Amino acid sequence: MSIRGFASDNNSGISPEVLKKIEEVNRGHVVGYGDDKYTETAVDLIKKNFGTGAIPFFVFTGTAANVLGIASSIRPFHSVFCAETSHIHVDECGAPERFAGCKLIPIETPDGKIKPDMLSKHMVGFNFEHHSQPGILSISQVSEMGTAYTINEIKDLADFAHRYGLLLHMDGARLSNAVVALGTGFKEITADAGVDILSFGGTKNGLMAAESVIFFREELADEFKYIRKQGMQLSSKMRYIAAQFIAFFENDLWKRNAIAANSMAHILYLAVKDIPEIKITQKVEANGVFIILPKHIIPALQKEFFFYPWNEETGEVRWMTSWDTTEEDIRRFVKVLKELVRA
Amino acid sequence: MSIRGFASDNNSGISPEVLKKIEEVNRGHVVGYGDDKYTETAVDLIKKNFGTGAIPFFVFTGTAANVLGIASSIRPFHSVFCAETSHIHVDECGAPERFAGCKLIPIETPDGKIKPDMLSKHMVGFNFEHHSQPGILSISQVSEMGTAYTINEIKDLADFAHRYGLLLHMDGARLSNAVVALGTGFKEITADAGVDILSFGGTKNGLMAAESVIFFREELADEFKYIRKQGMQLSSKMRYIAAQFIAFFENDLWKRNAIAANSMAHILYLAVKDIPEIKITQKVEANGVFIILPKHIIPALQKEFFFYPWNEETGEVRWMTSWDTTEEDIRRFVKVLKELVRA
Amino acid sequence: MSIRGFASDNNSGISPEVLKKIEEVNRGHVVGYGDDKYTETAVDLIKKNFGTGAIPFFVFTGTAANVLGIASSIRPFHSVFCAETSHIHVDECGAPERFAGCKLIPIETPDGKIKPDMLSKHMVGFNFEHHSQPGILSISQVSEMGTAYTINEIKDLADFAHRYGLLLHMDGARLSNAVVALGTGFKEITADAGVDILSFGGTKNGLMAAESVIFFREELADEFKYIRKQGMQLSSKMRYIAAQFIAFFENDLWKRNAIAANSMAHILYLAVKDIPEIKITQKVEANGVFIILPKHIIPALQKEFFFYPWNEETGEVRWMTSWDTTEEDIRRFVKVLKELVRA
Amino acid sequence: MSIRGFASDNNSGISPEVLKKIEEVNRGHVVGYGDDKYTETAVDLIKKNFGTGAIPFFVFTGTAANVLGIASSIRPFHSVFCAETSHIHVDECGAPERFAGCKLIPIETPDGKIKPDMLSKHMVGFNFEHHSQPGILSISQVSEMGTAYTINEIKDLADFAHRYGLLLHMDGARLSNAVVALGTGFKEITADAGVDILSFGGTKNGLMAAESVIFFREELADEFKYIRKQGMQLSSKMRYIAAQFIAFFENDLWKRNAIAANSMAHILYLAVKDIPEIKITQKVEANGVFIILPKHIIPALQKEFFFYPWNEETGEVRWMTSWDTTEEDIRRFVKVLKELVRA
Repeated sequence: MSIRGFASDNNSGISPEVLKKIEEVNRGHVVGYGDDKYTETAVDLIKKNFGTGAIPFFVFTGTAANVLGIASSIRPFHSVFCAETSHIHVDECGAPERFAGCKLIPIETPDGKIKPDMLSKHMVGFNFEHHSQPGILSISQVSEMGTAYTINEIKDLADFAHRYGLLLHMDGARLSNAVVALGTGFKEITADAGVDILSFGGTKNGLMAAESVIFFREELADEFKYIRKQGMQLSSKMRYIAAQFIAFFENDLWKRNAIAANSMAHILYLAVKDIPEIKITQKVEANGVFIILPKHIIPALQKEFFFYPWNEETGEVRWMTSWDTTEEDIRRFVKVLKELVRA
Repeated sequence: MSIRGFASDNNSGISPEVLKKIEEVNRGHVVGYGDDKYTETAVDLIKKNFGTGAIPFFVFTGTAANVLGIASSIRPFHSVFCAETSHIHVDECGAPERFAGCKLIPIETPDGKIKPDMLSKHMVGFNFEHHSQPGILSISQVSEMGTAYTINEIKDLADFAHRYGLLLHMDGARLSNAVVALGTGFKEITADAGVDILSFGGTKNGLMAAESVIFFREELADEFKYIRKQGMQLSSKMRYIAAQFIAFFENDLWKRNAIAANSMAHILYLAVKDIPEIKITQKVEANGVFIILPKHIIPALQKEFFFYPWNEETGEVRWMTSWDTTEEDIRRFVKVLKELVRA
Repeated sequence: MSIRGFASDNNSGISPEVLKKIEEVNRGHVVGYGDDKYTETAVDLIKKNFGTGAIPFFVFTGTAANVLGIASSIRPFHSVFCAETSHIHVDECGAPERFAGCKLIPIETPDGKIKPDMLSKHMVGFNFEHHSQPGILSISQVSEMGTAYTINEIKDLADFAHRYGLLLHMDGARLSNAVVALGTGFKEITADAGVDILSFGGTKNGLMAAESVIFFREELADEFKYIRKQGMQLSSKMRYIAAQFIAFFENDLWKRNAIAANSMAHILYLAVKDIPEIKITQKVEANGVFIILPKHIIPALQKEFFFYPWNEETGEVRWMTSWDTTEEDIRRFVKVLKELVRA
Repeated sequence: MSIRGFASDNNSGISPEVLKKIEEVNRGHVVGYGDDKYTETAVDLIKKNFGTGAIPFFVFTGTAANVLGIASSIRPFHSVFCAETSHIHVDECGAPERFAGCKLIPIETPDGKIKPDMLSKHMVGFNFEHHSQPGILSISQVSEMGTAYTINEIKDLADFAHRYGLLLHMDGARLSNAVVALGTGFKEITADAGVDILSFGGTKNGLMAAESVIFFREELADEFKYIRKQGMQLSSKMRYIAAQFIAFFENDLWKRNAIAANSMAHILYLAVKDIPEIKITQKVEANGVFIILPKHIIPALQKEFFFYPWNEETGEVRWMTSWDTTEEDIRRFVKVLKELVRA
């Protein structure tokens, strides 16, 4: 098996700038747990990019960012609406239920994106103690199907959520890819669009293990420090997470990496879209390509380049590109693919 | 305030060997979540040091190692006996109760070390559904008071625990310091002494953010991977935690660092023990010095070198040394201390 | 509003035999918490009806029976498959998620009944730590749509569940109604059909507050007493729950009550089925009638006889009959209904 | 073994007035879940006795009243201070930890009663995210050692708690006994004394299974209905719990029962206090007598009249009297006791 593949954007390594910054902050003693100047700088950079109302907290994993952000904003008798394909519903082993104690209500979508009209029928049972009370609408940007919400789509969802008293949570594990894809800015697509709680990720875009929860409402952030600690996510040597985010924003590393990943997905898309035996199932808007392959070639192709099946019934698979994917990777991959298809 | 102090062994930085190893593993793609050759190497090194029966899992924080190790080994109706001063009871913001759902029963000790006779009166209520059922005995090695359990003391506790059907958990956030202090090996002090579940930490001894749960009973480890994921502690880019542990064991970095920290505590102890105005309250066996200071000098001393109060009533404070503490740090600190005492 | 209606089978009172038995056991002192002769008798009666392998525990509410039965049988990283309309998913305010920490996966059904082919696509991700691990298949007998599973349907589901390593849980809040509807026995429809964990309810069928969890596998029952206590459901004066179950089985009260309720639903069905303006949406197999009414008449009808809407979009409503529903109740109700429809 | 004993006030039966009231409300249909006139009456009676600011909710067990009252008032990162002997710490199998997710901090007391000076050393770590944040002070009235807090003692504790931002919770499983012992009223000893959350019990004083959570601050009660439902304690046929509380207040049943129980304890106390071989260890203020017996006679005495050991090391045992204890019961018991002592 090739050491390079299209399984996930977290199979790639770390951008050299990140390692350099980690080395740079590795000087002498600083107070632990975030009370240091590097963390202060990282917080400032986030405020600069997301607006001064942004209140960030750093954690180690995207699952933790999602679960702790949700747990701090609602009580266990609330429910969270999310796409049936969402990471919080499918890929966190029930962490939201266990830690937040709440109910997740999956919404079927054709493309990973929730629309207000999919939610209407669920806006019932308010004040009725037998039902979990609607508490949060959670969307993923980029969605797990590689599609991106436009700013207006987010605003519509925020309006809808707020009209019914729900909070809007965004799982932004791939937010940088969305910002680049839409040609917009972090603030425009989050704070300005009505997002209340954001999981903002770096790990899938060239960092080592650096994620954050960003609140856009002060009252939600008040007690979060206790929840992060009780949630086992308070880093003692916080400066090393901070360093990663500093590198992320300095010289627009986040943007360069996201542009690279998105471009590679586009190139991959162009290289395969006309192969008659395959079918591209989703718009390629960021760094993922969803595709139905002839089932019989999947094992052989996976043997050369590892990737995950998405739907074993239909033969749909997912190919993710990364900040370090090269055109050569794609050429080699498409070559093998074509050979297998035509064999 | 000096950038160097005696607040905590996690205010220090990362050993250069660790950064170098992180850079070394930062080559190309590897499968995420621990299915990579670096993680395999790190696991092998742990087995080499702790015995082939050791089954390790990597996590980011010491709190997570403790809580997840405990949560996976008992059910919520069980209780955990621990020293009143223990990290799980005092310094984890109730994380064990929240995630494991269990009861912690604090045991008063003079020196942070539990003895079997302190437990006897609690070995009641078995099979009585009104009482939390005794499930785990948790000890800290080095203890939070800077003292170390001898191998025989651990064996006695293990025998006691097992006789009553309890498991023995060890919080080994500073296990390296204990191994060095006792002149023994990892295996002798854990697996061979009857420990069932170990939190083995690296962060306080020169790593960046690398901790582990090590099970010495296969049946306890079986389902742990789900608990780690649900506990929000599965690293996607696992190779970077693995790299830290590889560096830890290569060329005995863990030992060199622990010897350095322990020696500095001893030098600090020697430098202050004869100052008549102060009182050393605990044996200095590893890298912590506990001391009662004249209350009025504490703020001034903290202003120069940050450290934590331990008992505000008595004026007891805690000084921790680290792998990178220097004799010069101690000289400067003791100089200020003496000036303040005599002022 | 009439004091009699069709809202729920728990709006009715208690059978006189039950009160009489409560009075009968109200003599002198007995040991609390279930260690008394009345509880022993109730347990024996359950074993007589459900087979000697049945291990019953008494609780106060149906929600508790479901949640505690589930919580004791799986771990939080497991998932529970249930009908989208099921009580555990819709009407327990997220109690299973909060207390068991697990994920509920709702299955869409046309009639409240799950079929094996609806589950097949979910039988994936075993051993994959990112996914909640399939743990329990939960079915409701009678279903929340008033339909009953045949014995063969249950056996097929049990086979399916066991083949994949899942347990079969039955929410039997209305099990008596199902037994009567199918002309079978308790044992045939539960233990013999492969049910592993049963919530067996009395409250909806003439008891005051008496529910039970019955395990059909000894290993599942072992630690349940602690879970019931920790779940806040251990009755101190247990004899009064026991008395209710004794009355339930003596002279076949359960059967007489269930026959009465089912018959009344059938009479109601016959009385309305030919009204052209309404549409009966589900088979009337037990004591519930599901019906689409002209939306404009619903408020007026509810004003006279309270009942719950089922689907506000379609105008579907639910009418439940009870052990004490009379033909006169139905006559008066249908009279008003017809007047409103024709107005 | 005699069918009468001194094990617990819940080994006795139900007052006849209670059964009569249950029969009385057993007429026709009423809406379920508490939306009925009987529940309204019971709520009014509680407001009449505890003040118009009292907001009561009914539940089935005392454990549930404690746990749900606590869970609704704090968040999981808070701690609860309680006597080391308290029911929530010792006799609820860890239910508070599991359901509320919080930490319990046991306070050693000589007589089951907490004094402000026992709490002072714990009033630290506010705002420090490593520590569980002080949230609730929980006291038991009557205490588990049979002693009662005076009104002034409660006021002092309330002042202390409120000064530090804690809430005052009272476990009033035996509140009626305290009211009678102190010659005061429910309101004076709760609302007027600064209690914020009260568990008010009836089961130990002649009811069948009727407990309540009473909030004295509106903001604490707002969301409680969801927590009761999610806590599996919402009764569908609520009128039957309501009936018990109606009977409790009508004709002062609560008072007659409590006076009877307290008097019997006093008579028992007088009958044994001069036996030289035994030692009464606590003031007899309500319906419990704590006593050290010669260890060798305990099994023989328990064989005749069941009661619980309290401290197996010292030979301390607990005798509880009940509303239906008779002088004849005491005479027979003391006779056997004296024979055993002198044997």
